[in-house]
Amino acid sequence: MTGLDRLSLNQITTKRWSLPEAVRGCVDAGIPAIGLWRDKVAETGLARSAKLCRDAGLAVSTLCRGGFLTPVEPTARRAALADNLRAVEEAAELGTDTLVMVVGGLPDGSRDLPGARQRVADMIAELAPHAGDLGVRLAIEPLHPMFCADRAVVSTLAQALDLAAPHPATQVGVVVDSYHVWWDPDLPAQIARAGRTGRLASYQVCDWTLPLPTDALLGRGHVGDGHIDFRTLTDLVTVAGYTGWIEVEIFNERIWDTPGEQTLRTLTERHLAHVAAP
Amino acid sequence: MTGLDRLSLNQITTKRWSLPEAVRGCVDAGIPAIGLWRDKVAETGLARSAKLCRDAGLAVSTLCRGGFLTPVEPTARRAALADNLRAVEEAAELGTDTLVMVVGGLPDGSRDLPGARQRVADMIAELAPHAGDLGVRLAIEPLHPMFCADRAVVSTLAQALDLAAPHPATQVGVVVDSYHVWWDPDLPAQIARAGRTGRLASYQVCDWTLPLPTDALLGRGHVGDGHIDFRTLTDLVTVAGYTGWIEVEIFNERIWDTPGEQTLRTLTERHLAHVAAP
Repeated sequence: MTGLDRLSLNQITTKRWSLPEAVRGCVDAGIPAIGLWRDKVAETGLARSAKLCRDAGLAVSTLCRGGFLTPVEPTARRAALADNLRAVEEAAELGTDTLVMVVGGLPDGSRDLPGARQRVADMIAELAPHAGDLGVRLAIEPLHPMFCADRAVVSTLAQALDLAAPHPATQVGVVVDSYHVWWDPDLPAQIARAGRTGRLASYQVCDWTLPLPTDALLGRGHVGDGHIDFRTLTDLVTVAGYTGWIEVEIFNERIWDTPGEQTLRTLTERHLAHVAAP
Repeated sequence: MTGLDRLSLNQITTKRWSLPEAVRGCVDAGIPAIGLWRDKVAETGLARSAKLCRDAGLAVSTLCRGGFLTPVEPTARRAALADNLRAVEEAAELGTDTLVMVVGGLPDGSRDLPGARQRVADMIAELAPHAGDLGVRLAIEPLHPMFCADRAVVSTLAQALDLAAPHPATQVGVVVDSYHVWWDPDLPAQIARAGRTGRLASYQVCDWTLPLPTDALLGRGHVGDGHIDFRTLTDLVTVAGYTGWIEVEIFNERIWDTPGEQTLRTLTERHLAHVAAP
């Protein structure tokens, strides 16, 4: 019991590392789990990636990511469906039960937000049973509303839970990512609802720091560097019954340019100071 | 009846213009109302600003802005209270019944979001009766969640309506600003609620355009240049019973650098094409 027993490295946090490097980094830092990205897995090979994690004794907390479910055009829609089915298979092969879903934004030139949201619901309905068959849960991730137009038309935890509700909790869950949801006045109630309905599939952390950078995607900070109260947020998730991995996922060029070993030292220190049970 | 009969220029849109220039610009462009900013009013003088608008036959749709209600420290809190009381008096003197409230973000170094939100509620309770006495309504503006840390801890229309609820509708209302709320899956229900409870104090428009600029405050676009469906949004506000001014408020360096006359031409064209009743 080192206080790191629920910590997972989402490998985007060490973007310059290959998958084998990230696996070795986790082992060296005493981090017991890793969240993988499909592009990194493809680079190393699916079977080899799975074996590397297994042999290292690393749990795979999530696979990132499926989604981008909003195309209108039938060919693009079929391609999205096929790609998500592949992502589900990859998740199963990698030994994780959680596929993170970033649902996609408005198609080019479209202003039909309700339409895009309906297409997400339709695609989830098509994918969910297949995911369930392979023991994988689609984990719908609400993204911060500033990404609504271009990345995810699912903007709140309530909305993600509404999308999940028609499906068995074993097939569709939700992600609570601190960066995306910390501002939401309805968050305590919705985290409790997620717990009550068995939908809490993943808890991801990074901090809200200002100013936002030129590329708004890349403004996330180490836990403790910003405005989020991680003690309170983690308590909410814990009281709701979540006992799973706590995954650190940071998009930030400056952190990406830092040597991975140093990033992992910072990350474990911050986990112990702000997130792990005292 | 030119189709411009409900259009108002929020004068931040022509930031380089003084108040007298903005008044003349509106008259020349056939725009019947203006939303004023306190710094511009102070520059011209309160009585003179009021007279200029009156003499030009311009309605004053709103005064921007009161708010910044989140200080913890008693001296800062008293200063905020006093400043807001002055803003209420200025609104009354300028002949508008609507004071737009940007409630303020987290105090420096604080991560206590519920605390900041509670202080907003407390300050609104102190201010509301005084505003009502002068025939001015505090119009709480939910700001986009990306401004939660530094500018407004009120992030959704539901939250603004909850804050308004304890007070008479003549004292406290809400602003629907397209830029800040367009992404909200709960928006149709909350606009209807705002109408039902008589809280719709102001409807402001500008568009969500991408990419976000380096200063995220300044990313707003002319109506029609971005991702917001203004026909649907305006219908929601109309069905909810709103018959007031439709104010164009754009923060954007490029638009600010455009000659004011040209900005007003674009603005009236876009109003007719996307917002005014067909």
